[in-house]
Amino acid sequence: MKTVKSLQESRIDYKPKLPHSLEGALATKADGVATSQIAPTIENLFSHISNKPLLSIVPMSSSQKHLPLRVGVVFSGGQASGGHNVITGIFDALQKHHPDSVLIGFCDGPNGIVKNKRTILTEQLLASYRNQGGFDLIGSGRDKIETAEQLAAARQTVESLNLDGLVIIGGDDSNTNAAVLAEYFKSSGCKTSVIGVPKTIDGDLKNEYIEISFGFDTACKTYSEIIGNLLRDALSAKKCYYFVKVMGRSASHIALECALNTHPNLTLISEEVAEKRQTLREVTGEIVDVIISRAALGKEYGLILIPEGIIEFIPEMNVLISELNQLLAQNVKLEEISRKLSAASVSCFEALPKGIQEQLLLTRDSHGNVQVSKIETERLFIELVEKELKRRNYSGKFSAQPFFCGYEGRSGLPSNFDAQYCYALGHVAAVLVNAKANGYICCLRNLTQPVEKWIPCGVPLVNMLTIEQRKGKEKAVIKKALVDLGGNLFALFAQNRLHWAKEDAYRSPGPIQFFGPSELTESIPLTVLINCF
Amino acid sequence: MKTVKSLQESRIDYKPKLPHSLEGALATKADGVATSQIAPTIENLFSHISNKPLLSIVPMSSSQKHLPLRVGVVFSGGQASGGHNVITGIFDALQKHHPDSVLIGFCDGPNGIVKNKRTILTEQLLASYRNQGGFDLIGSGRDKIETAEQLAAARQTVESLNLDGLVIIGGDDSNTNAAVLAEYFKSSGCKTSVIGVPKTIDGDLKNEYIEISFGFDTACKTYSEIIGNLLRDALSAKKCYYFVKVMGRSASHIALECALNTHPNLTLISEEVAEKRQTLREVTGEIVDVIISRAALGKEYGLILIPEGIIEFIPEMNVLISELNQLLAQNVKLEEISRKLSAASVSCFEALPKGIQEQLLLTRDSHGNVQVSKIETERLFIELVEKELKRRNYSGKFSAQPFFCGYEGRSGLPSNFDAQYCYALGHVAAVLVNAKANGYICCLRNLTQPVEKWIPCGVPLVNMLTIEQRKGKEKAVIKKALVDLGGNLFALFAQNRLHWAKEDAYRSPGPIQFFGPSELTESIPLTVLINCF
Repeated sequence: MKTVKSLQESRIDYKPKLPHSLEGALATKADGVATSQIAPTIENLFSHISNKPLLSIVPMSSSQKHLPLRVGVVFSGGQASGGHNVITGIFDALQKHHPDSVLIGFCDGPNGIVKNKRTILTEQLLASYRNQGGFDLIGSGRDKIETAEQLAAARQTVESLNLDGLVIIGGDDSNTNAAVLAEYFKSSGCKTSVIGVPKTIDGDLKNEYIEISFGFDTACKTYSEIIGNLLRDALSAKKCYYFVKVMGRSASHIALECALNTHPNLTLISEEVAEKRQTLREVTGEIVDVIISRAALGKEYGLILIPEGIIEFIPEMNVLISELNQLLAQNVKLEEISRKLSAASVSCFEALPKGIQEQLLLTRDSHGNVQVSKIETERLFIELVEKELKRRNYSGKFSAQPFFCGYEGRSGLPSNFDAQYCYALGHVAAVLVNAKANGYICCLRNLTQPVEKWIPCGVPLVNMLTIEQRKGKEKAVIKKALVDLGGNLFALFAQNRLHWAKEDAYRSPGPIQFFGPSELTESIPLTVLINCF
Repeated sequence: MKTVKSLQESRIDYKPKLPHSLEGALATKADGVATSQIAPTIENLFSHISNKPLLSIVPMSSSQKHLPLRVGVVFSGGQASGGHNVITGIFDALQKHHPDSVLIGFCDGPNGIVKNKRTILTEQLLASYRNQGGFDLIGSGRDKIETAEQLAAARQTVESLNLDGLVIIGGDDSNTNAAVLAEYFKSSGCKTSVIGVPKTIDGDLKNEYIEISFGFDTACKTYSEIIGNLLRDALSAKKCYYFVKVMGRSASHIALECALNTHPNLTLISEEVAEKRQTLREVTGEIVDVIISRAALGKEYGLILIPEGIIEFIPEMNVLISELNQLLAQNVKLEEISRKLSAASVSCFEALPKGIQEQLLLTRDSHGNVQVSKIETERLFIELVEKELKRRNYSGKFSAQPFFCGYEGRSGLPSNFDAQYCYALGHVAAVLVNAKANGYICCLRNLTQPVEKWIPCGVPLVNMLTIEQRKGKEKAVIKKALVDLGGNLFALFAQNRLHWAKEDAYRSPGPIQFFGPSELTESIPLTVLINCF
């Protein structure tokens, strides 16, 4: 309808810069010897992909040569900005080296591999997806490939398509699944290399090899724009508190990054709540303390930032929820449940607002468990704060508005950082497939430097696996990275938070910029800049 | 903390372009004769400011000269991006012409005038507010200056400060109040000119003189970014409907502008619902029709856009609410209310979800009325749609997420359009004060042209007044502009909506850009581009 080029259209023309080390024809080179700190259980479970070295990426020697490759790619799990660029990165890298290479996208997540639901990805098809948000080119899904039947079906798919490689773009669980698939393929004599790519806006797929997962930057910048706007609005109207929940169920990286970008009056960090073993009442009390101390300064407005997953980090809530789950599994009647809870859980349960109580008792997920993720924490805390203010005979005004920074941060136009990071990750994936590396995850290091200096490498997925108890069973998983309460980033937050509580040191970072000064367009997350590793 | 300049800081250095006709020393010139179509009632009420001509702005003749001016300025009502630029515009225009001029900001809204709560605005103070969002430089408030005491106190304030002019930055009500004040000042021999500036994100302060109010552009662009992201997210995950409510209680301009920017599957337009005299059930049915027709195409996802004020445009809801208000005013007991409602209202009431029923009965505003604005319409429609899908034996999946595009759009960094529009409006205000124009509102026309060609003028506020019944009394008010169902903009929407309902013609306009190609950075709202007037 419009005759001028929209931003969305103009982004198609954007050319992500590529690290120097990803230019030209490339091969891999073992970087030192294989790491030996893998637990025996894991080595047993993953014997075919264990004891492999890190792989550096190096120029191809003149004796080596590129063959046409056949590669499959799939999105696994929730959206994260930049996903399409991983695919265009793989595609461009493959095409650069051999025009007969083929890239196949599996549709609607891992189940697309099991069902062999696929589409051939051509330049024509990809053209309009370059530097665009979302996963809609091929869709995504949350299924895993775990059962013997699913594994066999997946193998049949990749063999029938004669794939050299299968690239799985996903979070911690999906990359664990990639390791399972890599081990299974190799052990059953299938030639397809499985390569993972670290994706999740939550930022909890992070370790000594992975500086950040993709999508985190765009999500945090999108949320920081909104939070910054709300802060300025609160300061202007001077009559309301915004209670803003931000995504991040298993870790509070997003909350911490956004807090450092915008300086709200109080930011809860789930990991700290857990470490201090705070009760729901104590957390509420902390919010109320800030509100009352601000009221003493004549300030009846502000913003409280709450990570999505906080409820599960409050020990007493965790106990209550697991007791409820047990009782519900035993089909205990609703009216009898409160009599069967422990005394501590009863008092915890009774302190909850009625609506939340009902929700805990009545809504179930597909496994019959309490749906913690459905609890609207931002509204829960508003209710609890109102109650506590009354109890403390607070005589000032308290008005609050809930806000959830969520889905709008997962599928936006990727920031230049995410666009370039993902495009480079796609190139790394292509190199690793060409080198027949199996069970590796794509990494780029040195991210605090300009793109040209980023250092690509391949890391064995097993290096990231640990054994955890999940539902009473030992399971090899990639450990989720929590906010490091001893790290530099948290220290920076902790140093400033008392000041931010009382003073209105608000910042409005504004919307993501794609043009203009490079310090704006190429900015990277503080989580990366002030690296904890 | 960061060593590089943030976007927020870099915006301080931005220099808004000024229309050519606002450069140099300026005066006003009567543009034709006074308009004569003012209703006699209004002429009686506003005899001192009626029958005035439109004022063009022209270069000052060599015989004229600038004196130092003393001007007061106040924000009235809700935040809108660009407010600070109106103030810097006035300040710079005053300073340019006489360095001894003084600009005084009244604090926390019109009540600041009554109470003489003020601050002198200096370059030093203003420097960090240039091109920034929010109203926090001087705050705002919703009080009016209406009673004899308030009017007298306001007069005393402006006289004690020896003000040549008082600039009121506000929406339709605030500008009506500006006319009242202008009439009162003039009739009581006070020299202070009262000048209005058209502000409101809702876009409903618009008429043959005013092409758009400021703040609308930034708000719509901020919401369109979010809606575009959610559309892409829905398309990627393919499992959920977003029900997005956008601000705009009295009119659906924001919903219409955002719909044209992003192409959701269904956008409700309150004015159309009212014109068709649709019931709540019919509106729900329209949403359900779209969901079912999409399901037939295998699409169980999408986005429904809902204007904030829709409830009050549904005739039966309006009747129900006014019946409830009457009964509540008569102190009828809650349990008896349903027996005293009309049959139509009973059936309307009973169709509402329980939570909404309780809200209608239990929460009151300060006048004892039902709080319609507190109804979370996006959630109401999700519940109603679920019920109706069940009634129609819909066998597909329906999962929905509510979202409210609201406060985050009022105080963001103003778009270049709003930054420049407001800066120019501030200049117009200064010229009008210097010309001793009283009871005028600042206008800029020709907004579809580049800034340099915008045409400033002053329009008598009385030209915009009409008589309306408010609470049983005749009142002179500025008529709110509703979406023109016969206009070009609505026609464009109506032409496309069937296509948008079924096809995923989603657009993601992305975040506001401040740098880069001018078609992106200088873009103006479609509401202005495809002007209805």
